[in-house]
Amino acid sequence: MKLTMFTTGGAAKLGVIRDDHVVEVGPLFPDAPTDLMSLILAGPSVQSQVAALAEAPQGVPLSSVTLSLLIPRPGKILCLGLNYVEHAREGGSEVPDYPAVFSRLPSSMLPANAPILKTALSDEIDFEAELLVILGSGGKNIAEDEALSHVFGYTAFNDVSVRDYQRLTSQWTVGKNFDATGPYGPVVVTADELPAGGRDLRLCSRLNGKVMQDASTSDMVFSVARTISILSQAMTLEAGDLIATGTPSGVGASRRPQVFLRDGDVIEVEIEGIGTLSNPVVAEARA
Amino acid sequence: MKLTMFTTGGAAKLGVIRDDHVVEVGPLFPDAPTDLMSLILAGPSVQSQVAALAEAPQGVPLSSVTLSLLIPRPGKILCLGLNYVEHAREGGSEVPDYPAVFSRLPSSMLPANAPILKTALSDEIDFEAELLVILGSGGKNIAEDEALSHVFGYTAFNDVSVRDYQRLTSQWTVGKNFDATGPYGPVVVTADELPAGGRDLRLCSRLNGKVMQDASTSDMVFSVARTISILSQAMTLEAGDLIATGTPSGVGASRRPQVFLRDGDVIEVEIEGIGTLSNPVVAEARA
Repeated sequence: MKLTMFTTGGAAKLGVIRDDHVVEVGPLFPDAPTDLMSLILAGPSVQSQVAALAEAPQGVPLSSVTLSLLIPRPGKILCLGLNYVEHAREGGSEVPDYPAVFSRLPSSMLPANAPILKTALSDEIDFEAELLVILGSGGKNIAEDEALSHVFGYTAFNDVSVRDYQRLTSQWTVGKNFDATGPYGPVVVTADELPAGGRDLRLCSRLNGKVMQDASTSDMVFSVARTISILSQAMTLEAGDLIATGTPSGVGASRRPQVFLRDGDVIEVEIEGIGTLSNPVVAEARA
Repeated sequence: MKLTMFTTGGAAKLGVIRDDHVVEVGPLFPDAPTDLMSLILAGPSVQSQVAALAEAPQGVPLSSVTLSLLIPRPGKILCLGLNYVEHAREGGSEVPDYPAVFSRLPSSMLPANAPILKTALSDEIDFEAELLVILGSGGKNIAEDEALSHVFGYTAFNDVSVRDYQRLTSQWTVGKNFDATGPYGPVVVTADELPAGGRDLRLCSRLNGKVMQDASTSDMVFSVARTISILSQAMTLEAGDLIATGTPSGVGASRRPQVFLRDGDVIEVEIEGIGTLSNPVVAEARA
């Protein structure tokens, strides 16, 4: 099943995607879930019901709707750094033997098609194509061989980074949390429709149509299953938590000459079997 | 005004504290706020009404109630590292010229008196006494000389850290986010009852009654006002956001011999004019 969140009449709604059309879930049956978080919490039988009823050919083109945040207030947004060998090397870092983790805050997140804000404080705004995991159930001390049963689905994420702020101190949190720098979506593909752990998927970014990153999710240092298992040893994971799995090589800061996002650019992240996340870049008015 | 959140009959309730007694706010007048976040969002006139009505001498002893989280799901929990010169030096770090910021997640937070969990994965669990700021209103690009008008109040925080996990990679996030390691409270003192910016307050930690840290909040590198202003340049702050202002010297990892928290310990953070945050330490069962 492929899902999205979209807005009509000012209200965010849950949609199932079929053949590039969106079918609103809410009217399909009494007490049907009206947002993605409710669908996740409703469990497999309601999820199957949604999948079955959305077979009908009603719906509007995906390209005609305004997309909205898939999960507006997740309990956690955990992000891995340095999770592809070549990306760690291009930035001069060692490949870690434990995940390098930072957190994004809800205020940094935005949906597909919405503008990425280029802060007036920096000209070093960089793109990072990533596979994003959405948890369907939580837990503590999850074994690696059980971990994938906790995944609801996968989507695309662009971990847009303000590089000079990321490196002002040892901690990346501020440089990774400028307003409107974390687009994700638009389509969540449930785990059953993709290879286990989201492996072997081609992952690309394109800046104004030109390919900047092109890799396979199989090149991750820490697999999705291992990441979930390791994180759950420290903290209780919850349904709806988001885990970003890191970016491959080819980011703008490591190119010669360097390439950074500018007002008017369009940056895309495409993941095989999931689709394309596209966002324009808009310069923020100077304060 | 001094406030807390407490639990009776399974429900969390907002209380005003007078003379070590808690007066439940909900029944005081029609549509009175029933939790701290609602009181913050209700604004100054409702806040004044609460303060006036809570003059009556009803209420139960603070020591008799079960305390609960002041704000269960804040939009952000931002924490400063290395914000006291002597603490930066004792850990071998430079004093930063920009705040070193990481984020805590709600799953790590707990109220006063609740047990801090000592993970079975580490024996390097350390204490960090801190002044915690609770924002009353948000904003972007807040000027330093306006920043304190955005503070609702202050409370005590213990930024309990799993030192070996904090240092496994460059990023501190995992070591700062083990389950049940971030106690704060129990009393929020509104900004009008404390020195501007929470300055000149004595800040101590005590382990089993023995003083471990003893400093003044005036020794912060980045003041509360400057911190709010700097953070708001990157991200939109919101009412209810929590900002932890860093810890002074004397943490367990920097002592010789080192001192870490063990099962059965009691760790306290006391801040002048605010009160004492006390938590027992309980070893987590091995997975």
